[in-house]
Amino acid sequence: MADRRFFDNAGPFDLSALAEIAEAELSPGADGARRLSDVAPLDTAGPDDVSFLDNRRYLGQFGASKAGACIVSPELADRAPAGMVLLLTPRPYRGYAKVAQAFYPQPRPRPGVHPSAVVDASAVIGEGSEIGPGVVVGPAAQIGRACRLEANSVIGEAVTVGDGTVVGPNASLAYCEVGRACQIHAGVRIGTRGFGFSMEPEGFVDVPQLGRVIVGDGVEIGANTTIDRGAGPDTVIGAGAKIDNLVQIGHNVRIGRGCVLVAQSGIAGSTVLEDFVAVAAQAGVSGHLAIGSGARIGAQSGVMRDVPSGMNVLGSPARPAREFFRLCALWDRELKARGKTKDE
Amino acid sequence: MADRRFFDNAGPFDLSALAEIAEAELSPGADGARRLSDVAPLDTAGPDDVSFLDNRRYLGQFGASKAGACIVSPELADRAPAGMVLLLTPRPYRGYAKVAQAFYPQPRPRPGVHPSAVVDASAVIGEGSEIGPGVVVGPAAQIGRACRLEANSVIGEAVTVGDGTVVGPNASLAYCEVGRACQIHAGVRIGTRGFGFSMEPEGFVDVPQLGRVIVGDGVEIGANTTIDRGAGPDTVIGAGAKIDNLVQIGHNVRIGRGCVLVAQSGIAGSTVLEDFVAVAAQAGVSGHLAIGSGARIGAQSGVMRDVPSGMNVLGSPARPAREFFRLCALWDRELKARGKTKDE
Amino acid sequence: MADRRFFDNAGPFDLSALAEIAEAELSPGADGARRLSDVAPLDTAGPDDVSFLDNRRYLGQFGASKAGACIVSPELADRAPAGMVLLLTPRPYRGYAKVAQAFYPQPRPRPGVHPSAVVDASAVIGEGSEIGPGVVVGPAAQIGRACRLEANSVIGEAVTVGDGTVVGPNASLAYCEVGRACQIHAGVRIGTRGFGFSMEPEGFVDVPQLGRVIVGDGVEIGANTTIDRGAGPDTVIGAGAKIDNLVQIGHNVRIGRGCVLVAQSGIAGSTVLEDFVAVAAQAGVSGHLAIGSGARIGAQSGVMRDVPSGMNVLGSPARPAREFFRLCALWDRELKARGKTKDE
Repeated sequence: MADRRFFDNAGPFDLSALAEIAEAELSPGADGARRLSDVAPLDTAGPDDVSFLDNRRYLGQFGASKAGACIVSPELADRAPAGMVLLLTPRPYRGYAKVAQAFYPQPRPRPGVHPSAVVDASAVIGEGSEIGPGVVVGPAAQIGRACRLEANSVIGEAVTVGDGTVVGPNASLAYCEVGRACQIHAGVRIGTRGFGFSMEPEGFVDVPQLGRVIVGDGVEIGANTTIDRGAGPDTVIGAGAKIDNLVQIGHNVRIGRGCVLVAQSGIAGSTVLEDFVAVAAQAGVSGHLAIGSGARIGAQSGVMRDVPSGMNVLGSPARPAREFFRLCALWDRELKARGKTKDE
Repeated sequence: MADRRFFDNAGPFDLSALAEIAEAELSPGADGARRLSDVAPLDTAGPDDVSFLDNRRYLGQFGASKAGACIVSPELADRAPAGMVLLLTPRPYRGYAKVAQAFYPQPRPRPGVHPSAVVDASAVIGEGSEIGPGVVVGPAAQIGRACRLEANSVIGEAVTVGDGTVVGPNASLAYCEVGRACQIHAGVRIGTRGFGFSMEPEGFVDVPQLGRVIVGDGVEIGANTTIDRGAGPDTVIGAGAKIDNLVQIGHNVRIGRGCVLVAQSGIAGSTVLEDFVAVAAQAGVSGHLAIGSGARIGAQSGVMRDVPSGMNVLGSPARPAREFFRLCALWDRELKARGKTKDE
Repeated sequence: MADRRFFDNAGPFDLSALAEIAEAELSPGADGARRLSDVAPLDTAGPDDVSFLDNRRYLGQFGASKAGACIVSPELADRAPAGMVLLLTPRPYRGYAKVAQAFYPQPRPRPGVHPSAVVDASAVIGEGSEIGPGVVVGPAAQIGRACRLEANSVIGEAVTVGDGTVVGPNASLAYCEVGRACQIHAGVRIGTRGFGFSMEPEGFVDVPQLGRVIVGDGVEIGANTTIDRGAGPDTVIGAGAKIDNLVQIGHNVRIGRGCVLVAQSGIAGSTVLEDFVAVAAQAGVSGHLAIGSGARIGAQSGVMRDVPSGMNVLGSPARPAREFFRLCALWDRELKARGKTKDE
């Protein structure tokens, strides 16, 4: 059960409502009027909780679970323990997401500007927005409606933030336009100077970074992630992109719609990711490259060349994933062979 | 000598006291009543300073050092320069740590709430705690006794912080319980939303992250490190764990007691590290894995499978360290062979 | 054109002035009195803009550009479209940097202490410095002249900051001396406790970190980068060094003059980088190593041994770059050979 000190539960819901929310079908004989009060993981759920199974790793927990109901795909239904109601759907994780959102809707902004916040007289704050303690909003900034700017965040001069966007504590935004319904988490840095300078015998000469960062609607940006502003062109984050913690995005980078960048990955300057590219944890993509739509960059990969649409790459330097696995297998065989002949 | 502008020296101490603090034995003939005034590295120490030798790399500096006294293991005693008093112990680094702590005890909190701090009326601040300028403490938060919350840090709603814990400047804590005597450094983010969403053809559906972060006693968390809250289960950091700067810890991760995570390493969601696991710099561990107690993950390794207790692994993908070194040697030989035959 | 909401344009300038600023020669027949109003990238520049070409990747854009003038090296002059004025110089990127600086000079500090800032009575603020909203300046800190401390940044006790230095929003400085004309970006952490402790059977014993961080003149430090203070010696960043975002620098590290550390790289404790070393993105250098002047550490490399001056290394573990490329070629051949013989 979610800790009530931190999370407000909007339940209970009856099974019929939950099935509708999850776009699932109730297992035969289930009482649609039965009320469930919470969501919970398989191993801690009780008879009043709804849980879910999405990963076969947890089939054992499923079989032993005491959850009153479980969202699961039809082909795993026969692995359920006796007495468990099933909400059957081919997309159980999505179903769970919807059900959990019903139980735990996002906290709404508490409209108003905290007296300790410093909002420039020329800034505009939209209706229903919450400006937390210690927040600083610079001149000519425009904050949309129903936004939440959390404690000690800093919104720079002329920055615009779209309706319904949340900016986490201690985050700072500069030289940027942020879309609607974005989640900018704690400590994010948007709009810092791109790493642009000319290396000369007499020392480095800074190149003014004259672009912005444009963040589309519905983007999530993880804690302490950094996104530099463009050098001349803008740095662009496409609508719906999901960016994890501690990610680095260089100047002039263009991230397509719906891209996923996992923690500690980095994209060097002027590289373009088309839509729905996935970059796994700790991977790096060199500058000035083009990564085709739907490409997948494996964890810790180092991409030094363009990647065609739909291709999976892995390794440092990155190669097609199948090739990388063949290479690993080759190494294994060589090691084994040498072990046998004791030639080392 | 430590810069007196930054560090308050509680010395001098006499050699007998220092030997007791270090749990060391004075070298024969040393005058236990002689007073030393400071600690210093071998190369800059003078006759009133106590230094230490723990790494054979610095044997040259040891032989040339002008330190009045040095904490060193007995087997290196004969490498000491003439006239240097020795504090002999098989654990010289520990001995130095204790002596340095005696000279430079942790600064104590200066009790009180700075007038610029914003502490919610329902929050509880323990006796003797120092709440710095610009700090924000949310509703129902509970801060223990003798804590220090440094400037512009943010403590979220209902967060609890144990006695004696220090929270660095600009850090932010949310959805968490933090133990006693922890050191949470500048810019740390605890409790941000885990990276959980369902990928659907129509777009991503966020999965509410309903767990907390539970941080045990005596944990140290380095600057700008990020620890996401659990998705349903909690994210757990075991007592005494040492976490360096810019580390990423995903949702539902369980870190055992006394684990060490070096800078820029990352642990993906739902992975379990048993006690005393060491993860070196820039290493990554995939999600849903089990890393046995005492295992060692080498720098830049990429762990894609469970690791048994006590095993050392290295490489990306990670393999047993010995195997990795054999593989490197194999590559070296191949390169050399090809060089000779000029077949490239 | 740079967005006027964010950037103030000091132009227009006439072509003769721009040529002088760029240390370039005007192409024959150009009208030196013609006035240009802005800088712009090749693909968006119009007839009143000056652009530049520095990377052959963009030769196509150059040929199609509508820029009124372009800074370019003489050997590419014949690729210019008809009617484009050329500013010819062997160093076009430097030329552009200077021209862009003329159009967009750094914003000057607006002298004064914001009423919401908390400046200790014993701190000294130099003439002409701007102390932003929510900034905290500790006891005995010394801020030079014409500095800018941006919103919610925190300057610790006794810290000194040189003339003309800018500290970004939410950054925190402790136990350090920072030089003149530095750019410390948002969220930077300087002076946190080094990761120093003794590992004992009974638990970890913290080693007090008694050194400082000394940052030379003209250093740039990227967003959310972390630099720990020394354990006894200082951590030192040489004058003119350029450090990107999310970089980790351990205790006692010495970075030489003019070194470049790209995003997400890390330098472990006590390592020394001589002058003009370049460390590419996501590379790591182990502790206690010596990296010779002018050495280049490739992206994602893992350096485990000293690197001689001027050497390029690559790979994890790192080896001479040429050797690494030969190794990759060797793997490619092996893969191809196996593919043919179908022995897998």
